[in-house]
Amino acid sequence: MLGRVNHIAIAVPDLAAATAAYRDTLGAAVSQPQPLPEHGVTVVFVELPNTKVELLQPLGQDSPIAAFLEKNPSGGMHHICYEVDDIILARDRLVVAGARVLGDGQPKTGAHGKPVIFLHPKDFFGTLIELEQA
Amino acid sequence: MLGRVNHIAIAVPDLAAATAAYRDTLGAAVSQPQPLPEHGVTVVFVELPNTKVELLQPLGQDSPIAAFLEKNPSGGMHHICYEVDDIILARDRLVVAGARVLGDGQPKTGAHGKPVIFLHPKDFFGTLIELEQA
Repeated sequence: MLGRVNHIAIAVPDLAAATAAYRDTLGAAVSQPQPLPEHGVTVVFVELPNTKVELLQPLGQDSPIAAFLEKNPSGGMHHICYEVDDIILARDRLVVAGARVLGDGQPKTGAHGKPVIFLHPKDFFGTLIELEQA
Repeated sequence: MLGRVNHIAIAVPDLAAATAAYRDTLGAAVSQPQPLPEHGVTVVFVELPNTKVELLQPLGQDSPIAAFLEKNPSGGMHHICYEVDDIILARDRLVVAGARVLGDGQPKTGAHGKPVIFLHPKDFFGTLIELEQA
């Protein structure tokens, strides 16, 4: 069921400084910052040869990463996003297996314009997992 | 400088249960557990099409992930490993840029038998970064 790792998301308190660290210190290709107000984050894409890292900074009120940064003020790895072929089939299989889908259980439109769900980190050993329909 | 994401390491308190979750619930291909006593972990590889996840459980005394699991008893994302062409060039460039290499600054032989260094998470917004010579 799990396909490619679409991205690894890292929450940071200072997106400009984090972008500079990945671009200048680590020598990676980084995008311009992209505000996604409907998702409550501004994102910078770090492009690697086989996947990408997404640096996330809270945007606006009620950002979904605000609580994480309160708990981890320096930042940290926030979630891993895997691709799946069919988000509904994946969701149904997970629910039958006893995994909890966050929210109302319905796929939402994710930051890349594709249907996504998030799985409860308590069911996966402390890792927040996003599934995105490829 | 940064090449492929070689792996994403996830520390878990119960490797058998985590392996079952990735294999049976998430439908991923997983390896047999491989004890690496010289690295203080037992590892299971979760093979994805473009990279891999490594599930790590402490092995023996002084495991390098023991403190992390004390702080995060359910487990969690522990580090990201990126490939680099030349670990010495990478290390020297990072030191000039002010980044801190953990330990004595010399590359060690990593879990895949290749030279690796680890970078201080405080210099990279809470993310522990491993660099491995490809």
